[in-house]
Amino acid sequence: MYKQLIQLLGEDKVSKSETQLFHHSKDESYHPAVEPDVVVFPSCKEDVVAIVQFANQQTIPIIPFGAGSGLEGQAIPVKKGISISFQNMNQIVSFQPDDMLVTVQPGVTRLQLNEAVNRKGLFFPVDPGADATIGGMAATNASGTAAVRYGTMRDQVLQLEVVLPNGKIIQAGSLAKKSSSGYHLNGLFIGSEGTLGVFTEITLKLQGIPEAVLAARCSFSNIEASVKAAQAVLHAGIPVGRMELVDDVSIRKVNEYSGTSYPEQPSLFFEFHGNESGIKEDAALAEMIAREAGSIDWLAETDSKARATLWKARHELAYAFRHQNPKLKAGGTDVCVPISKLGEVVSYARNIIDQYGIEGGVLGHIGDGNFHTIYMYDPDNPDEIRTMNEIDGHIVKLALSYGGTCTGEHGVGLGKIKYQQAEHGASLELMQDIKQLIDPKQIMNPGKVLPRVTHNTL
Amino acid sequence: MYKQLIQLLGEDKVSKSETQLFHHSKDESYHPAVEPDVVVFPSCKEDVVAIVQFANQQTIPIIPFGAGSGLEGQAIPVKKGISISFQNMNQIVSFQPDDMLVTVQPGVTRLQLNEAVNRKGLFFPVDPGADATIGGMAATNASGTAAVRYGTMRDQVLQLEVVLPNGKIIQAGSLAKKSSSGYHLNGLFIGSEGTLGVFTEITLKLQGIPEAVLAARCSFSNIEASVKAAQAVLHAGIPVGRMELVDDVSIRKVNEYSGTSYPEQPSLFFEFHGNESGIKEDAALAEMIAREAGSIDWLAETDSKARATLWKARHELAYAFRHQNPKLKAGGTDVCVPISKLGEVVSYARNIIDQYGIEGGVLGHIGDGNFHTIYMYDPDNPDEIRTMNEIDGHIVKLALSYGGTCTGEHGVGLGKIKYQQAEHGASLELMQDIKQLIDPKQIMNPGKVLPRVTHNTL
Repeated sequence: MYKQLIQLLGEDKVSKSETQLFHHSKDESYHPAVEPDVVVFPSCKEDVVAIVQFANQQTIPIIPFGAGSGLEGQAIPVKKGISISFQNMNQIVSFQPDDMLVTVQPGVTRLQLNEAVNRKGLFFPVDPGADATIGGMAATNASGTAAVRYGTMRDQVLQLEVVLPNGKIIQAGSLAKKSSSGYHLNGLFIGSEGTLGVFTEITLKLQGIPEAVLAARCSFSNIEASVKAAQAVLHAGIPVGRMELVDDVSIRKVNEYSGTSYPEQPSLFFEFHGNESGIKEDAALAEMIAREAGSIDWLAETDSKARATLWKARHELAYAFRHQNPKLKAGGTDVCVPISKLGEVVSYARNIIDQYGIEGGVLGHIGDGNFHTIYMYDPDNPDEIRTMNEIDGHIVKLALSYGGTCTGEHGVGLGKIKYQQAEHGASLELMQDIKQLIDPKQIMNPGKVLPRVTHNTL
Repeated sequence: MYKQLIQLLGEDKVSKSETQLFHHSKDESYHPAVEPDVVVFPSCKEDVVAIVQFANQQTIPIIPFGAGSGLEGQAIPVKKGISISFQNMNQIVSFQPDDMLVTVQPGVTRLQLNEAVNRKGLFFPVDPGADATIGGMAATNASGTAAVRYGTMRDQVLQLEVVLPNGKIIQAGSLAKKSSSGYHLNGLFIGSEGTLGVFTEITLKLQGIPEAVLAARCSFSNIEASVKAAQAVLHAGIPVGRMELVDDVSIRKVNEYSGTSYPEQPSLFFEFHGNESGIKEDAALAEMIAREAGSIDWLAETDSKARATLWKARHELAYAFRHQNPKLKAGGTDVCVPISKLGEVVSYARNIIDQYGIEGGVLGHIGDGNFHTIYMYDPDNPDEIRTMNEIDGHIVKLALSYGGTCTGEHGVGLGKIKYQQAEHGASLELMQDIKQLIDPKQIMNPGKVLPRVTHNTL
């Protein structure tokens, strides 16, 4: 395999060094590391086609690898094979500010992308926690804090170039902002976590950087009140740019870490985007709503430095948890539920963490109904991993009972395969049949997303 | 077939009266009428399952029929068979204003839906020209004048219940606002024009009725200036609620029809949605931009009656064209292109209509890059139909050369099958393979959307 790939791609694009194999054996999840047989470093779409055709002929697993920041084991080569690194496919292919479009190779990271487009007054609004690659973000339908206003990855991708498992290269979508032509394939590939094909180019729509931004923060005496306030803001139709919940345990952790003294109460963090007078009026209405729901305070800032300070507790949250012990990893739930059920599910999550005696926080993208529990665990301790899965199992069960989803943004990978049947019911068979159609040899990131097939095909 | 269906469904749910067969033989396109063998009137999802299972066993074509307002022949039973009318599946199944969600049967129309949800301060923003059914709108990925702000049908559907050609009923999606679970099937079914399954329930997200609305109109001495103004408004990041172009020929037609005296110049029609101060500031910036681009005037209104009067020319356009001769039908292009190419493609369309000596207008959803040419033709005159197709062929060719689409919202049906290969290239094969996977017996609305298969399956 190694020698054949060197012949195909050249020596500098293939590695089986211990360092590279180790680096491409894991992500940020608790799933055990598994080293691939080899790592390849394509620099262009032709390389990718050659790799995929080779793997297809030889029936060797292919696992696309972005930044390795995944949280569900998506990039772990559980059946070994060829890990495809996109570190040398990290170019911006074309940038059309007049069309508010940009085309990138999959290895471009989101911070790199924003740096390139900001100078033209544009920004890319999808901001998951890590500086992930656009390819990885497309593969997991990533979102983040701005989805409440700007949508998820699936909403940003206009055109997607994919190498199918049979080595054919296709363009899904077009450069038009909307279309009723053919079948819409973009949505199928986005979120398929490398199990249907390898992305080689992604065309994204961009947003104008808001003329003005107002940030605000308010705290409540209990978490239910904060959720009620958030719901009321949404019902009032206030087009929040961001709306995040951070609970008291999380704020306490931040104070410990940063030496700050934010009020250790459940808090909502807001951003209002628009023109100057518009956002003032939006914020004024949101303040009134928050106070009616019982907020203890309301701080607002427009200056960019002051806004950063105001949001510090939200931004530093992950570090605050991780900082205490570098051996530990951060884990937790990622459910998303209808807004009306959010209060109950958030309280349930809060209580269940307390019952298990774990020091965990509750935070998240409350505007979408998506929230996280966050706590540290020892990835080498099977009991702690089991506990984490138990807790998530309870929360997911409740979320699914309300028509929610087991994963609002992190994806399925390995960890959430067990919930797919319960969540998707009869449509799971269609997903499995589509997978079988596109990847009959099961070479595309095998063992991820879908459980084993147990039905006769359609 | 008729007798068997009566046994299956009951006499009152099956018809082969001349009236019903005629009614279900055509839509608003130029494609010749073809009567089905029978029309069925399911009243619940169990009826639909029974119909589909019967058609599957007997290999009989099934053609879902909504309001019959389609523009590309989607609902015409070209291979005869069973036309499924949803006139008795027109109930709102559940309405959850707290979640800003509503679940409807496919026969609910958009005006009916809005009437039901408006009373809770919510609205459904997808507004194609006709009072179409939600099922038909989902099948064509309809949009309309508000897509620039609120998106297309595909962006509104959270969950979709579908009866597959094999008679199995599945739920695609969930009630969560976003998800990274499984494969995203919604997007595949939305816009598939009845060729992949029959919808039985559709869960839609709703928007809050904007707190305040400001309408504006401005005219230009030439069409290029109006397009430049629209582009500049988008680049400035003004979140227009609606932004429509109406050219001078169209305004003249409206003046003839309504006895009004609007300036017979290319005009832009705006709506700004938001809070009171925000929309004033948005409109002020838009006015400045329009004047810089050469607008001759600028009228703005906030009162709802005055806004309706301001937009009258846009609203009455279709009637103004159709009114002159009830025998004629309205036709024209539906391309959508990147914004930077809009000026060129709109001018090209304007010139080509003039060259053919046709009295047609240019209008449309300029905020998305989607516009229409509109002119009347005699559906019984093959020369006029051929001319119409020639004109559209030229415009589509130019649009595709810029990465655009042959249909921004009307769908493919029969009329645009000829452009599918050029538009989709290699991805067309995957669409055909998915169709073959889901509908191996080719019973679901045969002859629509996809050209005949000419490749070996994957």
